[in-house]
Amino acid sequence: MNKLNIIKIGGNVIEDSKLLDSFLNDFASIKEYKILVHGGGKDASKLAKKLGVNTNIIDGRRITDSSNLEIITMVYGGKINKFIVAKLQGLNCNAIGVSGADCNSITAVKRPIKEIDYGFVGDIDKINTNIFKLLLENKITPVCCAISHDGKGQLLNTNADTIASVLAIELSKLYSVSLLYCFEKKGVLNIEKSDQKILELITPTSYINLKSKGVINSGMIPKIDNCFNALKSGVKIVKIGSPKIIKGNEPHTKVVL
Amino acid sequence: MNKLNIIKIGGNVIEDSKLLDSFLNDFASIKEYKILVHGGGKDASKLAKKLGVNTNIIDGRRITDSSNLEIITMVYGGKINKFIVAKLQGLNCNAIGVSGADCNSITAVKRPIKEIDYGFVGDIDKINTNIFKLLLENKITPVCCAISHDGKGQLLNTNADTIASVLAIELSKLYSVSLLYCFEKKGVLNIEKSDQKILELITPTSYINLKSKGVINSGMIPKIDNCFNALKSGVKIVKIGSPKIIKGNEPHTKVVL
Repeated sequence: MNKLNIIKIGGNVIEDSKLLDSFLNDFASIKEYKILVHGGGKDASKLAKKLGVNTNIIDGRRITDSSNLEIITMVYGGKINKFIVAKLQGLNCNAIGVSGADCNSITAVKRPIKEIDYGFVGDIDKINTNIFKLLLENKITPVCCAISHDGKGQLLNTNADTIASVLAIELSKLYSVSLLYCFEKKGVLNIEKSDQKILELITPTSYINLKSKGVINSGMIPKIDNCFNALKSGVKIVKIGSPKIIKGNEPHTKVVL
Repeated sequence: MNKLNIIKIGGNVIEDSKLLDSFLNDFASIKEYKILVHGGGKDASKLAKKLGVNTNIIDGRRITDSSNLEIITMVYGGKINKFIVAKLQGLNCNAIGVSGADCNSITAVKRPIKEIDYGFVGDIDKINTNIFKLLLENKITPVCCAISHDGKGQLLNTNADTIASVLAIELSKLYSVSLLYCFEKKGVLNIEKSDQKILELITPTSYINLKSKGVINSGMIPKIDNCFNALKSGVKIVKIGSPKIIKGNEPHTKVVL
């Protein structure tokens, strides 16, 4: 099986032009198959503010009315995605930017209204593995923004971490997949410790302990859940850390079964 | 040679949701290979106004400073492109949205500064025919927005009419190409006549006469120049008219050699 690296970058990496440049340089130099996944929530919130559009985020999830959907489509699908793609092209990485609507790569179901109406938010239904295979095997590197579609004409806002983990799971049928979550910290921090030391290894057992002790930042919980889910479903390697971990030697958090 | 339809839609078609829906329906039903090209200048100007960004258009060309480039990237590459792609997917047309940076599809050279500094405006240098071939022959329909790149990391604003004609010319090496310019009118009008009758046929000789009599709207001149250029360079059919011309029976302006 060929190796495939699926790398998700967080908002603080995207916002820091120096960090992003350095990351894109390292990303472009990966010889194996690779896919980049990004969101851009912070940038979207800034644009919303400028345009006088109300932003409402509940439990880290954006309530996506039509105005917010338009904004994230402009920011994730336009500004950030095309900027990254152009930069990668300049680094001799033949990138292509895709939303889930593009070549029907990611279909989702609009989240049903229960206690909260999330609006145009989609939960992933299907990954079109054929199109990713076609692109990768033609030496084209997909750059996926955090937008899916319902297959009936509607774009949907979809969490980038989840896109990365579902992509990793589905593409594990074809490739030996490493899933890397890159953000502004060096890994998952033990917030109990004053030196904010990172946790080098998280196992299912240690995870239960860490959660019960409350030493993991609550925002990390869905990310780590995604990691375990990926590992249980065929993904070979899962790491959380700074963008430098793609070069291999940096300290980071490894999640294992 | 397989047939390929390259269809460019104008800003007034994009802005009119009923007209756009009807066009996309007709476009999706084309059985032959097809490529859609769009800009979105009007929408970009509206967003610029909302954001307090100055828009300066000289001879129909937008002076593209970095703020305006960001806006067109959001509007052409994000909002309009992804909206169209999602709609086409809902109509069973497997569309993919591309800027010139995506899979290096269109490279351009930043326009040199002479009397006017157009900013980040690019004149097309090269069409990557291989990528269009790969997509088309995998039953994927490219939807091209009016953005190119310089291959060194910089996005560039490029006229959509010109992208359509250069694409048509280059892809004429591989396909039998029809180039259709669709806008809000039924064709090129004879502005001398009070009934604004369309010119059904424009030949090189009639064009010289029409221009010298000043009966063609000056905004149409670069479009018609693009048409003749395309015909001289291998494009089989060139038409200008309403979005309905893609169904075949509508009156329109045909440009011939």
